Amino acid sequence: MEKKKLDSIADINTDFPQWYTDVVVKSGLVSYSGVKGCMYIPPYGTALWENMKVNLDARFKKLGVENVTMPLLIPESLFQKEKDHIKGFAPEVAWVTHGGEEKLAERLLIRPTSEVLFCDYFASHIHSYRDLPKKFNQWANIVRWEKNTRPFLRTTEFFWQEGHTLHETKNEAMKMTLAIHKLYCDFAREVLAIPMLAGKKTESEKFAGAVDTFTIEAMMHDGKALQAGTSHFLGNGFSKAFGIKYQSRAGKEQYPFYTSWGASTRLIGGIVMAHGDENGLILPPHVAPIQVIIVPIQTQKEGVLKAAKKFKKSIERVVRTHMDETENSPGWKFAEWEMRGVPIRIEYGPRDIENQTCVVVLRNTREKISVNIADLKKELPKLLQRVHDGMYERALNRLNEMTYDAKNMNEITTLANTKPGFIRAPWCSAEGCEDKLKSEFGITSRCIINDTNETKCAICGEQSKYIVVWARAY
Amino acid sequence: MEKKKLDSIADINTDFPQWYTDVVVKSGLVSYSGVKGCMYIPPYGTALWENMKVNLDARFKKLGVENVTMPLLIPESLFQKEKDHIKGFAPEVAWVTHGGEEKLAERLLIRPTSEVLFCDYFASHIHSYRDLPKKFNQWANIVRWEKNTRPFLRTTEFFWQEGHTLHETKNEAMKMTLAIHKLYCDFAREVLAIPMLAGKKTESEKFAGAVDTFTIEAMMHDGKALQAGTSHFLGNGFSKAFGIKYQSRAGKEQYPFYTSWGASTRLIGGIVMAHGDENGLILPPHVAPIQVIIVPIQTQKEGVLKAAKKFKKSIERVVRTHMDETENSPGWKFAEWEMRGVPIRIEYGPRDIENQTCVVVLRNTREKISVNIADLKKELPKLLQRVHDGMYERALNRLNEMTYDAKNMNEITTLANTKPGFIRAPWCSAEGCEDKLKSEFGITSRCIINDTNETKCAICGEQSKYIVVWARAY
Repeated sequence: MEKKKLDSIADINTDFPQWYTDVVVKSGLVSYSGVKGCMYIPPYGTALWENMKVNLDARFKKLGVENVTMPLLIPESLFQKEKDHIKGFAPEVAWVTHGGEEKLAERLLIRPTSEVLFCDYFASHIHSYRDLPKKFNQWANIVRWEKNTRPFLRTTEFFWQEGHTLHETKNEAMKMTLAIHKLYCDFAREVLAIPMLAGKKTESEKFAGAVDTFTIEAMMHDGKALQAGTSHFLGNGFSKAFGIKYQSRAGKEQYPFYTSWGASTRLIGGIVMAHGDENGLILPPHVAPIQVIIVPIQTQKEGVLKAAKKFKKSIERVVRTHMDETENSPGWKFAEWEMRGVPIRIEYGPRDIENQTCVVVLRNTREKISVNIADLKKELPKLLQRVHDGMYERALNRLNEMTYDAKNMNEITTLANTKPGFIRAPWCSAEGCEDKLKSEFGITSRCIINDTNETKCAICGEQSKYIVVWARAY
Repeated sequence: MEKKKLDSIADINTDFPQWYTDVVVKSGLVSYSGVKGCMYIPPYGTALWENMKVNLDARFKKLGVENVTMPLLIPESLFQKEKDHIKGFAPEVAWVTHGGEEKLAERLLIRPTSEVLFCDYFASHIHSYRDLPKKFNQWANIVRWEKNTRPFLRTTEFFWQEGHTLHETKNEAMKMTLAIHKLYCDFAREVLAIPMLAGKKTESEKFAGAVDTFTIEAMMHDGKALQAGTSHFLGNGFSKAFGIKYQSRAGKEQYPFYTSWGASTRLIGGIVMAHGDENGLILPPHVAPIQVIIVPIQTQKEGVLKAAKKFKKSIERVVRTHMDETENSPGWKFAEWEMRGVPIRIEYGPRDIENQTCVVVLRNTREKISVNIADLKKELPKLLQRVHDGMYERALNRLNEMTYDAKNMNEITTLANTKPGFIRAPWCSAEGCEDKLKSEFGITSRCIINDTNETKCAICGEQSKYIVVWARAY
């Protein structure tokens, strides 16, 4: 039975794309829907996202952010007010043209992002410096018309939070942008166990309408990058386009500075591809829907189920736990819950009852530890943290080991052709150099990590301006 | 200043519709958007809805319900599988016809409810009796194309939860339908302080596609009814239409029985209109975003703010509290926070510091109570419950006092023309009688509360079948 289970997942090293599809569907994170590019997210996937939301939401609130709710639909005329913004998004919006039987006087689009709605709100609610700062966030669904879709990574509808804040000064807005950039990094490290490469997007990769975009980028199992959260400093362009004005402390009319930032259900794809192994998912303990799965052994023997239920009750308050009471064999259950990525498994049978112990198995290392039942409540949180730390370390080692330096096109070419991973190389800031790597190798600039004018652009040989990390990306 | 504040709200008794609009906008529950029929819901309104969600969600989970996430968009062909269902909803759906620059091969509609999506999911996931029951819920946004819209009460986009469950037997499904019906009633009473009229919808008023619809109906300040939550027993019609089959315990292929149920942001409109008074909102303590507002008096005097902050900190763990430190006068602040419906106000000034007391004012009765600062932490939860109980009692008295019995058309006519409120009257079950009250008085059947064949239909004089409560409704 165990064999059968494992056979049903493609090999992670030889067919990573198929492994991904197998794992996200079979673990219950997602189910293909009858709606092209849209997801059915079953209980397991929804619970994972809800746990991520609760944690992120609390972090936002510590920064003084308040949740609001904005409409799904945007009138075409409102969307057209900021020109760079519409240029960036127009090719991928879904248009509502009819309501009931009637054709609408003005087309509406389903929000691909909500800057224009927040601006419309701000324009009628911001009057004085006393109204600033405004720090808003919403948890929302978003639609972008995508040709090629993959669950979580690129979907027509996805779920995210989008923060939108207004500030008196440029300086304060930039501080906010960077505070969120750091928040995303901390969240990824402390909660998802994913180390992030953090930096600034180049001109060609930044958000449509932004002055600066800061990004966190994770390295996946196959060495490709996943953009995992962006924070934009939007200057006061949107304020001007939408007529958001306030009376300053000095009594002058001024345009506030704007930031926006978002992280989405893409992060779930990131978790899967950063941590998974040949046996399936490995979920980060802090957000795993089930942190501890209890598999009772020889349940036909008297007292096993009863004793298992008793200690389950005792640990329920400290960990999210579930007991598998189905008729399947223990081996089948082990494989099933490993595939679904539960961080800790507890095996418990007649001999354990006698000894007042149980066997704890860590998902990431498969390490087996005998723990006294009386100590479980105290030990499990520590063991979960150990799993978390081990997952983080493994991902960090990969990020370090698979990031290579290149000084010139020869080195870049060799790396691009032979070494999956990130390439760290100086760049002159010319878009032509970006285009070259993109067309030749499908490699894009992930982010600028440093300034430098002491060396040469690895692509064209002109004077360098930045150190950039380059990679193929999801 | 206080005068000015109150002037800005219409009189609740002479112009209730305007009072409603004034209060929901000025309190910060909602803001009119640039999108027809859609709402901007600022922090105050969003926090209220979030508190309601958390409470409802925990109640669902106690019944074994799991949250899932379904798509926003439905292909036209999928929507057409259940004929009664589409007939009911087709006139009010928004159609997506274009993605990016291209016309879609098949039109998509924005979900007006999600039965067909859940059915599509169930059809590929339910195979055996072991897969049942399935109890799913989702928190989602919904679009229904409405001609006449009012914030919360009737909006093009609204927010709700929709539960969808599948069961082996008719009996079990009916039990679930009624368990949710009771859950909604309990939630309204225990959390929103609103007494509900509970019963079954008539054939003409039930959900499109349902066998039976159970509803809770609240009486508003003006005697009109508000449908506040419905629970549908859908039989196995949807299962048949979508080919959801399972192998029963006896090894036979069978169609499971379906329930669906929902409550929405309409409930916010219900809270406003059930509890408000001439001074504005009165929010139910269990869900009020701010339960206790602290207004420091004579803040220019040394030590006032510091002492206020100190006791604020001490009560923060037991109540949601905020201190108004703006430059406005105490009188202005009193009026402002009364209008926004905060259940309890604490006034605190130099004399209170001396006496180690503060003045607690209850929003619903305006009762003033002197409380020792040392006792606040213990007293505030009790006082909040007192406000809740008083609100419930007031609403219950109104429901009882403004529900009238009628035996015949004469009595109905007199009541309809002179007495706002509910009319309880026997009915023969003929739709013609419903049509008559609707066309003559704009009165609809709210729900069947009892069976009776011992009397005559109050409308046509034929033998009665049910006791029905009739009313004008939002």
